[in-house]
Amino acid sequence: MPTPIDLLLTNAIVLTMDEDYSQYENGAVAVKDDSILAVGPSKELQGQYQAKNTLDCGGKVLLPGLVNAHTHVPMNLLRGLADDLRLDVWLLGYMMPVEREFVDPEFVRLGTALACAELIRSGVTCFADMYYYEDQVAQATAEAGLRAVVGQSILKFPSPDAATYEDALSAAEDLIKKWKGHPLITPAVAPHAHYTATEDILAAAVELAIKYDVPLHTHIAETAQEVEDSFDENGMPVVPHIKKHGLLKAKVIAAHCVHIDEGEMQTLQKYGAGVAHNPTSNLKLASGIAPVSAMLETGLNVGIGTDGASSNNDLDMFEEMRLTALLGKGSTGDPTVIPAKTALTMATRLGAKAIHLGDVTGSLEPGKRADLILVDISPLHNSPRFHNTTGSIYTQLVYASKSTDVSDVMVNGQWLMREKELLTINEGKLLPQAQAYAQRIDAFLSKREESVFSKLIAIGGAVEQESYEVQVKVRVPAVEPILQIIPEKLEVLYHRHYHEFDTYFRFEDAETGWLRYREDEYIDDKGEISNVRYRLTLIGPSREERFPGDVLLSRSRFLAPAIHSLRFYREYFNPTEEIFIEKDRLRWRVLFRDTVFYINLDRLDKPDLGTFLEIKSRTWSLEDAQHKANMADDLLGLLGISPDERKTQDYVKVVKAGA
Amino acid sequence: MPTPIDLLLTNAIVLTMDEDYSQYENGAVAVKDDSILAVGPSKELQGQYQAKNTLDCGGKVLLPGLVNAHTHVPMNLLRGLADDLRLDVWLLGYMMPVEREFVDPEFVRLGTALACAELIRSGVTCFADMYYYEDQVAQATAEAGLRAVVGQSILKFPSPDAATYEDALSAAEDLIKKWKGHPLITPAVAPHAHYTATEDILAAAVELAIKYDVPLHTHIAETAQEVEDSFDENGMPVVPHIKKHGLLKAKVIAAHCVHIDEGEMQTLQKYGAGVAHNPTSNLKLASGIAPVSAMLETGLNVGIGTDGASSNNDLDMFEEMRLTALLGKGSTGDPTVIPAKTALTMATRLGAKAIHLGDVTGSLEPGKRADLILVDISPLHNSPRFHNTTGSIYTQLVYASKSTDVSDVMVNGQWLMREKELLTINEGKLLPQAQAYAQRIDAFLSKREESVFSKLIAIGGAVEQESYEVQVKVRVPAVEPILQIIPEKLEVLYHRHYHEFDTYFRFEDAETGWLRYREDEYIDDKGEISNVRYRLTLIGPSREERFPGDVLLSRSRFLAPAIHSLRFYREYFNPTEEIFIEKDRLRWRVLFRDTVFYINLDRLDKPDLGTFLEIKSRTWSLEDAQHKANMADDLLGLLGISPDERKTQDYVKVVKAGA
Repeated sequence: MPTPIDLLLTNAIVLTMDEDYSQYENGAVAVKDDSILAVGPSKELQGQYQAKNTLDCGGKVLLPGLVNAHTHVPMNLLRGLADDLRLDVWLLGYMMPVEREFVDPEFVRLGTALACAELIRSGVTCFADMYYYEDQVAQATAEAGLRAVVGQSILKFPSPDAATYEDALSAAEDLIKKWKGHPLITPAVAPHAHYTATEDILAAAVELAIKYDVPLHTHIAETAQEVEDSFDENGMPVVPHIKKHGLLKAKVIAAHCVHIDEGEMQTLQKYGAGVAHNPTSNLKLASGIAPVSAMLETGLNVGIGTDGASSNNDLDMFEEMRLTALLGKGSTGDPTVIPAKTALTMATRLGAKAIHLGDVTGSLEPGKRADLILVDISPLHNSPRFHNTTGSIYTQLVYASKSTDVSDVMVNGQWLMREKELLTINEGKLLPQAQAYAQRIDAFLSKREESVFSKLIAIGGAVEQESYEVQVKVRVPAVEPILQIIPEKLEVLYHRHYHEFDTYFRFEDAETGWLRYREDEYIDDKGEISNVRYRLTLIGPSREERFPGDVLLSRSRFLAPAIHSLRFYREYFNPTEEIFIEKDRLRWRVLFRDTVFYINLDRLDKPDLGTFLEIKSRTWSLEDAQHKANMADDLLGLLGISPDERKTQDYVKVVKAGA
Repeated sequence: MPTPIDLLLTNAIVLTMDEDYSQYENGAVAVKDDSILAVGPSKELQGQYQAKNTLDCGGKVLLPGLVNAHTHVPMNLLRGLADDLRLDVWLLGYMMPVEREFVDPEFVRLGTALACAELIRSGVTCFADMYYYEDQVAQATAEAGLRAVVGQSILKFPSPDAATYEDALSAAEDLIKKWKGHPLITPAVAPHAHYTATEDILAAAVELAIKYDVPLHTHIAETAQEVEDSFDENGMPVVPHIKKHGLLKAKVIAAHCVHIDEGEMQTLQKYGAGVAHNPTSNLKLASGIAPVSAMLETGLNVGIGTDGASSNNDLDMFEEMRLTALLGKGSTGDPTVIPAKTALTMATRLGAKAIHLGDVTGSLEPGKRADLILVDISPLHNSPRFHNTTGSIYTQLVYASKSTDVSDVMVNGQWLMREKELLTINEGKLLPQAQAYAQRIDAFLSKREESVFSKLIAIGGAVEQESYEVQVKVRVPAVEPILQIIPEKLEVLYHRHYHEFDTYFRFEDAETGWLRYREDEYIDDKGEISNVRYRLTLIGPSREERFPGDVLLSRSRFLAPAIHSLRFYREYFNPTEEIFIEKDRLRWRVLFRDTVFYINLDRLDKPDLGTFLEIKSRTWSLEDAQHKANMADDLLGLLGISPDERKTQDYVKVVKAGA
């Protein structure tokens, strides 16, 4: 008497992806409730089971659904927002400001639904996520019917969904309590990375993960810089550092692992950590190529991920499988490394193990959930079909199949796509909503891009407005007399010595003014550099006015500490012109007729333009400015400079005039 | 009065890919006959032209058709035949034997038609090919309506379509005469590579190319080995070598250029050579990553190619564009290298220039042929759309679009695909023909794979059958007495000294016997190595018989010079077991009772198993064998070995027994 089942899938090339790589040329899979009951030749299973429904797969390939081992699904709403930029410009200049402005529960929910639709279409049945408002990710994913490990992000900084890391930890615990035990959703705790966490955060995250026996999803050794910083700050590479803080006691999902050595691989393997390899993202952000074949040799469970749609720019696991196989060869010089079969294993069974769902999904084996897909290998771009080795089918899938060849997707015994039609998500309804977000983000960015000032604000530097100032500047033929006169005839409040390296950015719109990146070396009495300061100054739109005697009422200035590199600002602000000036500055703060003046004696070294004397004084009114302008002229005379001496302008103009 | 034209394409996002990267958000292209008459805003062109037909493009992206700068289109019939193998195993073990057997005009024609269908579907309007029977490529391509540079291969070896290189040159000249001036087909001469050509071939190829002013398509510096060989043989890298032989006087299409230095780049640039970058193929065969950004900086015209479908495994230029952009970043550590716009330029305008068709195609400009495609960027995997920079559209196309998003393709003013329906090729008719070829090739290979012997034959070594031999082998306790007796009591015909390194391959089927790879060092009187010989011996299916006194009638043997490396044979024959033996052999050819015998005194060093004495004699009949077996026993006695001494078997069995 045949056993009653819900569904019998027949007439498929069945790739079980089990440990023995069992495959059936005319194979079948028996599904009962949410699980696989049997896999074998069609004829055999047709005799054994009495199915409520039978599906003739028409010779398509039936294989386990793909596992996307690392992603940030809501970022689908940010796909293509900013590309071909350096990591810091991309992250600090675009992603974070936009996320600060737009990421809320609605954004996360919509982005997740869009991503689920894309994942289903491309044959993914399970993914491991890390983002904000992860409860929304869980809800949208469960509605779409996909399987996921959803990790609530925890950072030491304020994030879109948590003002403090305590809030984030508490959100993670709420998430875990709410979803633990759900048939599709596995909640997780996701400290973003060791370098964005404090020791307390790491300890609390591990405690949560162990208390509730849930995975801990984090970024590990994505860039060489991260490893270098870890050596500098912790005296060791990343994996020993996280081990020291107890992270490996949890079920870790370690995303990236681009820069780990063999000892670190062995440590991760020993503690059962899974690795998520993200080949496109690692190339696109120029992080490098992860040592995947070495990791596999160590026995590590290495899965494959797409990362978020803003560093990929899609969630296509077929592309990632192919790239994994290709990079394995290209990076080792050995074309037998990471054969197609291995790449497909990473995207299925090994990926499931990497995200700690190896008992549930990743292969077609009795007892596992029915997470499976059908792939049509008959299209032109995948013909003809050779049978000369049992491996041919794997190379066809990895090297020639496209995600668009996936026709049917089932998760947990439920069809999510049949003959390329999505059954749980209404794409037509989502796309206009996505486009509406894009328009709002475009407007936000274009407003920001309108002025250098708003771009300066956007990257979060604390920008202050300085008072206006009166300024007079003359070229001086001899320095010695001035050096004598100042202490003799003026009350010196302080005297300083700097060596200054200034880079001026100019922009298409002259109204923008100049943005100056200044490196100030403080020179002490012994002539040594005692301190260095980096400052960014927006020398704002020209509101200058000339006074009699070529005294200048200076323009407005906005100051910020320059916490990023010159290179960052160059790529972020994208100036049309750049001018470099190196000068040696002697600076005095003096009292002249009971008024504070600043005297700068500047020797321009690069370009070599001689020495200039600057007299400056802060002012708050036009009348006061006029008064101080007259005093500045008098002070010039006191310093031995003839009032007829031709006054000059900003150094950047002097340099440009000389160029 | 509006100008009459044939077709006005309106309401498209028009990317001209011209030098200024002009783009129109609601743009139009006017087509008259085979050419583009105008490009501009829809509203403007609608007023200027009176079109016989108008096509509203519905907001799709209209851009120049992609240029596949290096491929071997007929190899579409070999897609997936053999993958994840080293270049030599792949080429010598699979591609060349199959090509020798199957490549004929029918094969080439069918393979080309299949490839053209795939190329059209994926948005390619022009390609540069190199294969055999290139006249068939030209015919099938012209029928499909695609544009191509078709290069007749020339090799110094016999090829499927030319017994000698003179035949190949003459076929190239015929091809040129027949097709020169065709609106779609540009004939070319294609010396496969400098290392598969003689100096005469290179000279003749250049002469042809110059005489008829056609491109010269060749492979340059694909592997590091090729460059090393060039240094060894020519004392210089590849580019100076081909320059020396005049190749750069022709309009060169240089495929690969993975391993060239900056000087070579400058040379290629100076002579106007075009480069075809093949990122997938170079990774898949582990050739390396070409220095594309450096080439572009030199001002070289670098296009992108798919290479043949057997090293890719498809002809998808969207994958190649994306990989070009990604590898540019990954290989330099700089994520701003090869931005999406540059990758798309390489696949269009620059690619057209690289294959010397820059005046005809590669951008949407008045006067160029109407080679254009429509790409739908509305699918889910490519949403939403951002407008914040003019570059966004390029990153969408390169990082998120798929070849399956191409909906319409026009070449030379003629539609080849409309709304994903091919108009010039009947795929349904071609696919069964392709599958029939695959079945024949499968049968050919599976017959070959049946035995190690037929695999040995297939790689073309001249294999000879050796006569059977009588063999007796004993372990000897002391060497000195034997060394004294031989010259005293036997007539020595010659005496030799070898040091032998033997690797034995065993196969699943024990009937196959053993395949031995032997490295024979000849040791001269001074103890120096005077020569080294590499031999492959198939110690055939066990047809041995025991004779009284444990004398062996040895099995059949097939010998071949081992012209490939041990590693090659290992990967090609794929043995289930491998045993290594290193021994020192003293060998005498002697006369004993007027019969020739061979005496080997073998000291087994690895593994260290002591010294053995072998007596061998060739035989042709069972009776003669019996007679010689008795004599061998007597000879043993003469050499002081007791006839009771236990005889032993082949060393490989001795070693296995000891293991």
